[in-house]
Amino acid sequence: MSMNSFGHLFRVTTWGESHGPALGATVDGCPPGVPLTPEMLQVWLDKRRPGQNKNMTQRNEPDAVRILSGVYEGVTTGTPIQLMIENTDQRSKDYGEIEKTFRPGHADITYWQKYGIRDPRGGGRSSARETAARVAAGGVAREVLKALAPGLEVKGYMTQMGDLHLDRAKFDWDAIDGNAFWLPDATAAATWEDYLQTIRKEHDSVGAAIEVVVRGAPAGLGAPVYAKLDTDLAAAMMSINAVKGVEIGEGMAAAALRGTANADEIFMGENGPEFSSNHAGGILGGISTGQDIVVRFAVKPTSSILTPRQSITKTGEPIEVVTKGRHDPCVGIRAVPVGEAMAACVVLDHLLLHRGQVGDGPRGQIG
Amino acid sequence: MSMNSFGHLFRVTTWGESHGPALGATVDGCPPGVPLTPEMLQVWLDKRRPGQNKNMTQRNEPDAVRILSGVYEGVTTGTPIQLMIENTDQRSKDYGEIEKTFRPGHADITYWQKYGIRDPRGGGRSSARETAARVAAGGVAREVLKALAPGLEVKGYMTQMGDLHLDRAKFDWDAIDGNAFWLPDATAAATWEDYLQTIRKEHDSVGAAIEVVVRGAPAGLGAPVYAKLDTDLAAAMMSINAVKGVEIGEGMAAAALRGTANADEIFMGENGPEFSSNHAGGILGGISTGQDIVVRFAVKPTSSILTPRQSITKTGEPIEVVTKGRHDPCVGIRAVPVGEAMAACVVLDHLLLHRGQVGDGPRGQIG
Amino acid sequence: MSMNSFGHLFRVTTWGESHGPALGATVDGCPPGVPLTPEMLQVWLDKRRPGQNKNMTQRNEPDAVRILSGVYEGVTTGTPIQLMIENTDQRSKDYGEIEKTFRPGHADITYWQKYGIRDPRGGGRSSARETAARVAAGGVAREVLKALAPGLEVKGYMTQMGDLHLDRAKFDWDAIDGNAFWLPDATAAATWEDYLQTIRKEHDSVGAAIEVVVRGAPAGLGAPVYAKLDTDLAAAMMSINAVKGVEIGEGMAAAALRGTANADEIFMGENGPEFSSNHAGGILGGISTGQDIVVRFAVKPTSSILTPRQSITKTGEPIEVVTKGRHDPCVGIRAVPVGEAMAACVVLDHLLLHRGQVGDGPRGQIG
Amino acid sequence: MSMNSFGHLFRVTTWGESHGPALGATVDGCPPGVPLTPEMLQVWLDKRRPGQNKNMTQRNEPDAVRILSGVYEGVTTGTPIQLMIENTDQRSKDYGEIEKTFRPGHADITYWQKYGIRDPRGGGRSSARETAARVAAGGVAREVLKALAPGLEVKGYMTQMGDLHLDRAKFDWDAIDGNAFWLPDATAAATWEDYLQTIRKEHDSVGAAIEVVVRGAPAGLGAPVYAKLDTDLAAAMMSINAVKGVEIGEGMAAAALRGTANADEIFMGENGPEFSSNHAGGILGGISTGQDIVVRFAVKPTSSILTPRQSITKTGEPIEVVTKGRHDPCVGIRAVPVGEAMAACVVLDHLLLHRGQVGDGPRGQIG
Repeated sequence: MSMNSFGHLFRVTTWGESHGPALGATVDGCPPGVPLTPEMLQVWLDKRRPGQNKNMTQRNEPDAVRILSGVYEGVTTGTPIQLMIENTDQRSKDYGEIEKTFRPGHADITYWQKYGIRDPRGGGRSSARETAARVAAGGVAREVLKALAPGLEVKGYMTQMGDLHLDRAKFDWDAIDGNAFWLPDATAAATWEDYLQTIRKEHDSVGAAIEVVVRGAPAGLGAPVYAKLDTDLAAAMMSINAVKGVEIGEGMAAAALRGTANADEIFMGENGPEFSSNHAGGILGGISTGQDIVVRFAVKPTSSILTPRQSITKTGEPIEVVTKGRHDPCVGIRAVPVGEAMAACVVLDHLLLHRGQVGDGPRGQIG
Repeated sequence: MSMNSFGHLFRVTTWGESHGPALGATVDGCPPGVPLTPEMLQVWLDKRRPGQNKNMTQRNEPDAVRILSGVYEGVTTGTPIQLMIENTDQRSKDYGEIEKTFRPGHADITYWQKYGIRDPRGGGRSSARETAARVAAGGVAREVLKALAPGLEVKGYMTQMGDLHLDRAKFDWDAIDGNAFWLPDATAAATWEDYLQTIRKEHDSVGAAIEVVVRGAPAGLGAPVYAKLDTDLAAAMMSINAVKGVEIGEGMAAAALRGTANADEIFMGENGPEFSSNHAGGILGGISTGQDIVVRFAVKPTSSILTPRQSITKTGEPIEVVTKGRHDPCVGIRAVPVGEAMAACVVLDHLLLHRGQVGDGPRGQIG
Repeated sequence: MSMNSFGHLFRVTTWGESHGPALGATVDGCPPGVPLTPEMLQVWLDKRRPGQNKNMTQRNEPDAVRILSGVYEGVTTGTPIQLMIENTDQRSKDYGEIEKTFRPGHADITYWQKYGIRDPRGGGRSSARETAARVAAGGVAREVLKALAPGLEVKGYMTQMGDLHLDRAKFDWDAIDGNAFWLPDATAAATWEDYLQTIRKEHDSVGAAIEVVVRGAPAGLGAPVYAKLDTDLAAAMMSINAVKGVEIGEGMAAAALRGTANADEIFMGENGPEFSSNHAGGILGGISTGQDIVVRFAVKPTSSILTPRQSITKTGEPIEVVTKGRHDPCVGIRAVPVGEAMAACVVLDHLLLHRGQVGDGPRGQIG
Repeated sequence: MSMNSFGHLFRVTTWGESHGPALGATVDGCPPGVPLTPEMLQVWLDKRRPGQNKNMTQRNEPDAVRILSGVYEGVTTGTPIQLMIENTDQRSKDYGEIEKTFRPGHADITYWQKYGIRDPRGGGRSSARETAARVAAGGVAREVLKALAPGLEVKGYMTQMGDLHLDRAKFDWDAIDGNAFWLPDATAAATWEDYLQTIRKEHDSVGAAIEVVVRGAPAGLGAPVYAKLDTDLAAAMMSINAVKGVEIGEGMAAAALRGTANADEIFMGENGPEFSSNHAGGILGGISTGQDIVVRFAVKPTSSILTPRQSITKTGEPIEVVTKGRHDPCVGIRAVPVGEAMAACVVLDHLLLHRGQVGDGPRGQIG
């Protein structure tokens, strides 16, 4: 019942604060015999790493991951895998006023009220630094998925940033990795960049929506009630910093639909059932249909901005807060690999759960 | 790691199928010494009960709850509380073609693929009947909250049904209990009813959005990372049948906001910190601020409609499906008490968790 | 994190008090497609049932189990199985002094101190009645084991009752079911019966030791550290009422052994590795070896005796307690089917866990 | 549902192998505001450390613990505490034949059969090195207990080693820390040392029994059924390497007792209820009575001995195994601080659980 763990059988526990000595993830329940090297994980950490271009914070965090346990001669042993990322940017400094001030939109005030503790080091445990550990753990999940579900793909991309929306008519899966916004539309990337730079220059920030698709997952993953695949995906995404909403398939737009429009009609294809549409986002009754699993989440605008906001100090005095330092004008960009990592963990977890309860593969045949 | 349980310390496990002999909830971890009678729970079950007016299915389900354990002389004992609701409408009948057909939008096909089982009795475990058990458990949570957090209120209402949206300018908290839609705007109820009847006559159904507010929760509930209050609320709501999206505060709309607009500025009030706004929905960094906790979810349109949809049988043959029977044209209406119940369970669970880890009350004082 | 649940994937939650309306078990995570009828479970409940002969309490508890959910047309569906046993011996009576007195050796005083509650109805939740629910759940586990591990056998028997010890030289597996003590030595049963009747006539009771053997479990069940097979067996047995000690293989006697004597030497047999002995009780490093899994536990003498003992009342007044009523002079006899049930649940749970993490069957081949 | 975690609210997850880069423990759910430094933990690690005298292995393991997270300015923050111990004795070497051989009494063969993995580095995850992480976590529990239950004491000592038994008539609590065997009888230490050296010179090893007492725990800790205090203590002790039996109070000897002898009679003392004896080991019905909590466990003799034993290789060839290297002739000595650590974790966990469900302190007053 750990408050810092996620998953049932493939279980990830993260630890560490923004500016402490290190942070990491303990990955328990990993199947044995899966090839795993730090380099395999580093790919995803590099994708999340700040300082890659001017749309991101210019902090220098190499985020080099070490595997301290659970791997022998390049192969997982079935025992807990400890992934550690040392904080090289861990500067000892005088936090001065910051320590006494509650920054609006940050967890400063709630941590203080809950724990009576104020860890001013870059937000402490509530910092988005924690997501580096998730991305590392997600990397492990990806390698296991390669072994257990070859062909399964987990892909995230942005669908909205402030006033800009992805034009679904131009959706191009192959464009995603080719631009700084993981945008499935190469023609729009320049516009998005201009927009974000304008916001940054205005000392402001902006929110975003990210969509993650799991392609190639078998039918039958999930459970009917509380361990529904969509429940666990929703929890996974909502547990990421700054996320305020999660949608499966149609999501909130389902409220506007009629039953006739929402029905994904079923037909018999050459390789099994096929659907006329995917309003359900690949999940019916908590269980995967075999279609693309589609989850979307919204990230609020970065709370750390250069425009002054009103707040109070620990002693209740009013104070104007300007958050200097190196902050992403849109944390949504870096949330893409984090969302992918969480989706990979959830899907693998349910693969193992299904195998545990039911055995390999789906049971009911059709046709 | 039960797949049919919810909560950490206040832990609810539901069981039962739509047309089986009974269904219910096992409530574990309930504090002792709390007055509890079946009548206290029946209030909420009656609120959820079908057949109350023409906007609901006309099935007759009295949903009388029995307390089989955990209560002695009208007071909780601290041991598991078993709540059982017998299915009086449990008719033995020939399911015929239904058993061999996968209804679009239903869990029929995924259950079959996962379990190799097809329980045709009203959807079996995937039926919305399961939510009766949640509502009963939520009633227990409400009674405990009365004892531990007097003044705390949990209230749900509809904010959208198809094309109709709640007019926030007319928001009237006191109107909620006065109409069949739990609508906080008495002036709109007639319009909503006409709209829904039209849809029903068109052999169609419609989706909805429900908002649940927890008023009077203390600051400090929740945890920083995976046991965030918003994570658990999102999981709780997404675990309800037919829910496709969950939002906290601004929700998906946060993607469109700028940081300057999203900041809930902090001021010192007479009784502690106050906020200029509540974009955060009462939760910062996973922990409650003391403001209203605001969670919203979307329910898809009822999949059981009288308009024919294409599907297949177990043997892969095409078939046209028309779902006769008594079905709600908008399940969102009855989702209101269910959402309330889940919110009550989550908030109580976090109250107990907080008390376990930190002790009574918040720790950090302000001012 | 339910306080009334047991198991990881095959998860049993029991509920109910001794003299409440009913008690039962919610069995979650059961594989689908397993034939299951109340009759299959009744066999084991009858084995545990009191009133069968003069060595047991003469209470009349038919302990008829009903399956309320999770089974359709005689086959498990994969959803939670609710097993309910109604208390027919639930007499409404005046508990009078009992309610104000703490019986020595009973949980009366600790329940009062913990919960501020005193449920005098036959011990409430702490009654051995609770074990009926375990036996029913164990019956489900047995049916699943039949399907997943044909040939696996779970067998319990007494090895000690007070001054009497099983003579291992006369061990006869086939004798177990032929006498009232589940004694693997038919020649000793009469002596044991005389001994127990003498104790009963002396208004006393006596303790016992029970051994449970799991024969035919595959190698590879368990985990290295906290989910060790022996850890879960120890927890399972210690969770039974009145149990004060648990042993695996040599058990406490291992403290007296030398390394040379304790080593189970390994040889290659026709069907894989064989061992020269089984000091380890079939478990090495938390994982099954394929040998017999041997767990033993001691049950304290029944605390309810007719000989007066000193105690106090709620108000701290001294009082002499004589526990009238129908009580087993040796609860150890009825603990045999309970220990079997727990062992069946643990072994099945680890079979599912192994299948979840590693897949079907052991991975490393020998020879 | 981590397989490498222990505890409900105070939850410890250990990770790491014997000769990997590092090992450690992630401690989740720790209350905030508790002073904690590495030095506070080092005391207990030093107590467990090998190489202290000739009764222990002469390996050099400084076991210096680092706190990587969860502590700020010397005080716990309420977030996960990562404790890391780097393996300085991590020599890269050629394991040669060892890697292909299954050592009798070791987990080599079961790991291979379960995972298809053979980590020859000092036993990998099954090494007693893992217990260093438990001792570190237990040190955290002790500091929290100091804050929450001042006066509570956790003390372990040996009661048996092979043929030698503690003479209870000479029991001297103050002698425990004064000899290498944590023996509560200073007059016997020399005899125990001679005995052990003789065994070592005979290229043999010997088992042991350890008793841990928790003094000063309040009444009311635990739960009636599966989260019984004794269940969790039994699981905690059985999860330690080489443990084969666990006893509470009378333990296995309860099988020989009569009810009249076993009854701990209750009297009213000046500060509440007192008992005439403590056969129950401080736990009734799963809940603490306020008496000393007494748990005992047996450790098998070290399997690594210089006397040759028969075994097989991976390919099924017979082979004679002699385990060279530096091994404790009696691992039971070093199991004393490990047992203490586990007891401290369990008692703290139940203190937090009790506080969560019931609030501070016991509820029912007596007198």
